[in-house]
Amino acid sequence: MFESAELGHRLSKEDYAGIEPQLRTDLLKVQYDLLEHKDFATVILINGIDGAGRGETVNLLNEWMDPRHIEVFAFDEPTDEERERPFMWRFWRALPPKGKIGVLFGNWYSDPIDERTFGRIKKAGLDQRLSEFNRFETMLVAEGVLLVKFWFHLSRVGQKKRLKALEANANTRWRVREADWLYYQEYDRYREVAEHVLRRTSTGIAPWVIVDGTDPPYRAVHVGRTLLDRLQRRVEHVRKGYRARQTAAPLVVAPDERNLLNSLVLQQSLDKKDYDEQLEKLQGRLAMAVRSEAFARHSLVLVFEGMDAAGKGGAIRRVTEALDARQYHVVPIGAPTDEESAQPYLWRFWRRLPRRGKVTIFDRSWYGRVLVERVEGFCSEADWMRAYAEINDFEDQLVSAGAIVVKLWLSVSDEEQLRRFREREAQSFKRYKITPDDWRNREKWPLYEPAVCDMIDRTSTENANWTLVEADNKYYARIKILRAIVNQLEAVLGK
Amino acid sequence: MFESAELGHRLSKEDYAGIEPQLRTDLLKVQYDLLEHKDFATVILINGIDGAGRGETVNLLNEWMDPRHIEVFAFDEPTDEERERPFMWRFWRALPPKGKIGVLFGNWYSDPIDERTFGRIKKAGLDQRLSEFNRFETMLVAEGVLLVKFWFHLSRVGQKKRLKALEANANTRWRVREADWLYYQEYDRYREVAEHVLRRTSTGIAPWVIVDGTDPPYRAVHVGRTLLDRLQRRVEHVRKGYRARQTAAPLVVAPDERNLLNSLVLQQSLDKKDYDEQLEKLQGRLAMAVRSEAFARHSLVLVFEGMDAAGKGGAIRRVTEALDARQYHVVPIGAPTDEESAQPYLWRFWRRLPRRGKVTIFDRSWYGRVLVERVEGFCSEADWMRAYAEINDFEDQLVSAGAIVVKLWLSVSDEEQLRRFREREAQSFKRYKITPDDWRNREKWPLYEPAVCDMIDRTSTENANWTLVEADNKYYARIKILRAIVNQLEAVLGK
Repeated sequence: MFESAELGHRLSKEDYAGIEPQLRTDLLKVQYDLLEHKDFATVILINGIDGAGRGETVNLLNEWMDPRHIEVFAFDEPTDEERERPFMWRFWRALPPKGKIGVLFGNWYSDPIDERTFGRIKKAGLDQRLSEFNRFETMLVAEGVLLVKFWFHLSRVGQKKRLKALEANANTRWRVREADWLYYQEYDRYREVAEHVLRRTSTGIAPWVIVDGTDPPYRAVHVGRTLLDRLQRRVEHVRKGYRARQTAAPLVVAPDERNLLNSLVLQQSLDKKDYDEQLEKLQGRLAMAVRSEAFARHSLVLVFEGMDAAGKGGAIRRVTEALDARQYHVVPIGAPTDEESAQPYLWRFWRRLPRRGKVTIFDRSWYGRVLVERVEGFCSEADWMRAYAEINDFEDQLVSAGAIVVKLWLSVSDEEQLRRFREREAQSFKRYKITPDDWRNREKWPLYEPAVCDMIDRTSTENANWTLVEADNKYYARIKILRAIVNQLEAVLGK
Repeated sequence: MFESAELGHRLSKEDYAGIEPQLRTDLLKVQYDLLEHKDFATVILINGIDGAGRGETVNLLNEWMDPRHIEVFAFDEPTDEERERPFMWRFWRALPPKGKIGVLFGNWYSDPIDERTFGRIKKAGLDQRLSEFNRFETMLVAEGVLLVKFWFHLSRVGQKKRLKALEANANTRWRVREADWLYYQEYDRYREVAEHVLRRTSTGIAPWVIVDGTDPPYRAVHVGRTLLDRLQRRVEHVRKGYRARQTAAPLVVAPDERNLLNSLVLQQSLDKKDYDEQLEKLQGRLAMAVRSEAFARHSLVLVFEGMDAAGKGGAIRRVTEALDARQYHVVPIGAPTDEESAQPYLWRFWRRLPRRGKVTIFDRSWYGRVLVERVEGFCSEADWMRAYAEINDFEDQLVSAGAIVVKLWLSVSDEEQLRRFREREAQSFKRYKITPDDWRNREKWPLYEPAVCDMIDRTSTENANWTLVEADNKYYARIKILRAIVNQLEAVLGK
């Protein structure tokens, strides 16, 4: 979930100064629009890591917009009035009416995350509460509330840096309490719990927006633009005469245009000799692992996604070379058959799941729903927005049943892709590999890029992480892929 | 949940013979419509108590419709193929394609209900699985599947009768296994678990239909008509050009027209002397209970719903007479204020919840959503269909926070209501109590009746049951109400 938020996003002062005035004007304009028409209430949740700038950002929103129509509620220890009523009572009290904006700072999510981090409740207990929250939020949305959920993130290093800096300055030293260091010590645990919570409660109708909290100008613009986008879309929606129901909300492009894909250094070096050596070793380890007794209680599911001509086929061959032909299936995914079209979109993948002791390699996969189907409009926005949670559920079930799931994204640079396309056209035996579709997709890359980033952010889970593979150098890519597979196999099989 | 299914529904042979031919024709017709247009797949879940006629009903459906396009799957012990894949794999395999009907007999619900009944999983574990099922079904519905869930019910007495009858006959004795008696012994536990499961998974988009399994002709017509109604509605929906999404599905009127309300004997006798005696005693016990130390950890929420002139006001006065004026509030619910209309519909009730040690009496309540708002069309069908689950969630939260919730439905007969209306008009000091709206509502009673029955069936829970009050005799009604309140209070306070 936090992949994009740990890229070190930044916005220079000049860029900020260029963006801010218009953003303020637009936010204020849409706020008055709300007030005038009173079509829906807006609830903004502010959660996240200590010191990631939640308070500062809320103050800024109040500065940018008309604070008479934004109410901010902070929830600390419950009052006795609150303690004597159901847990959600204090939040119901704080709900804004139609036309207004309510900012809930520390809300229904805060307690359960803390309690789980410090081991005071069990996993099943946490999940019970999360499903209550999902039902509650579904109700809010069905009642017409626009719900925007922000999670302010800070990496472990970032949090430490911040505490040290505050302590070093005599004027700010007082701001660091002992509890802050306690939280810092529990950082990894907190992050793990938060990741689970965010994933479970990022639904198609009310997804979390993860904000990199390191750089103040960046985070301010990220939050401001996201909010503006959500408000404007909803206002437009209402204006078209639709009922004021939530519309799916794709992520807003990061203000500094830095993303998971353009941060990769695609040209990595590995020479043929090193490649041959490492390949042999890794294939050996792979062969050992899948022939081991421990593997008989598991199965292996490999997911290959990537740009055209990124080298999926070649990489898959390097994997299958290490396997017995009776043990694996490679499943290439193209347009669905008639039979498959007559079923829910995940059906075609369910039918190909391996038994224990077996391997299935998906050459493209269920992620088509949030890639090609999103980009080409083969399904509606609401459909692909709900798909993230559905896919996470699907992979959870795989992992719970003993499957080891390795997901690989292969990226090549624009120039390298072009070179390979041309090469394929030139070589007669490779010509079948290049089609007009490939050229068309290449032109659509600007649409694919945000789709891929969303996919990685929303479906990298504790159970099934994405490995991003820099694939300009095929040798390097194949070794990285094999290593990811072997490492995960060995980790699970306990070798 | 099982209130309506324990009324002893019956359909005579003659009635059945009169209904069946047309029902068959209509079912067959709609089936061919599905096949021709292939707009959506239909999944029918068959669950319930052993011996409640699940198998017989499925056989009948096959007989009535074209069995080439209905596929029935029974799920017993998983095969080794199935065991080696995620739990849901076997059900995915059985999903019908668009145009076809799949009957899943023993499905994802069977295992968890059994496991919980026999104590092999905990409550939190069960709830985790139920929320997985909710997500799975939400996805199916979003993918366009028409999901119809039948629960075949049999009362404890009904189940015993059936087993005895089978044993008494030499030809059928073999059908009774030891396991059947084991299940019978666990009947109460099984019923309790099933009730929880049905409530948690009766969502607006995929509600359970509870079928009284005692009388074969009755249950056959109930299932047949429900299925027909759901299929016809969906086909019509598609024909109108809507996307093939689930439409909310109100319950079908019971074929024998017997329901919870018309089964009540409204004229009960209690003379003034007995009334005065019992009233004093019950008011005394009520006063003691709410002044007890134990009550300081609880609160009391009374919900009065009923027909106009059923005597809610008088009954409420008999309750408040026993209370200290500082301890209670009576909240009359009419049309919402502007402030309330600007919020989700439950907001106005949340704001009036009592603190510990206090009492709130709602004279009409949140049930307006599924009564007047449903009948008058103040909200959409989808809105009131989702309200049952939302209301159950709301009351769950109340009870978890220590509230004691007593819900009372007051019914008067048509004649008695008329008499009271006329009396009110005649007496000047009561004239304010009768308005043109009352006369209008009286005419709309045929619409209110099924709404009330649905409400009772869907919101009677282990935490907050409905008490139905026969109210033609005011004395009787007031005593029954006070007794219900006092008994529940004393049960919780441990007196």
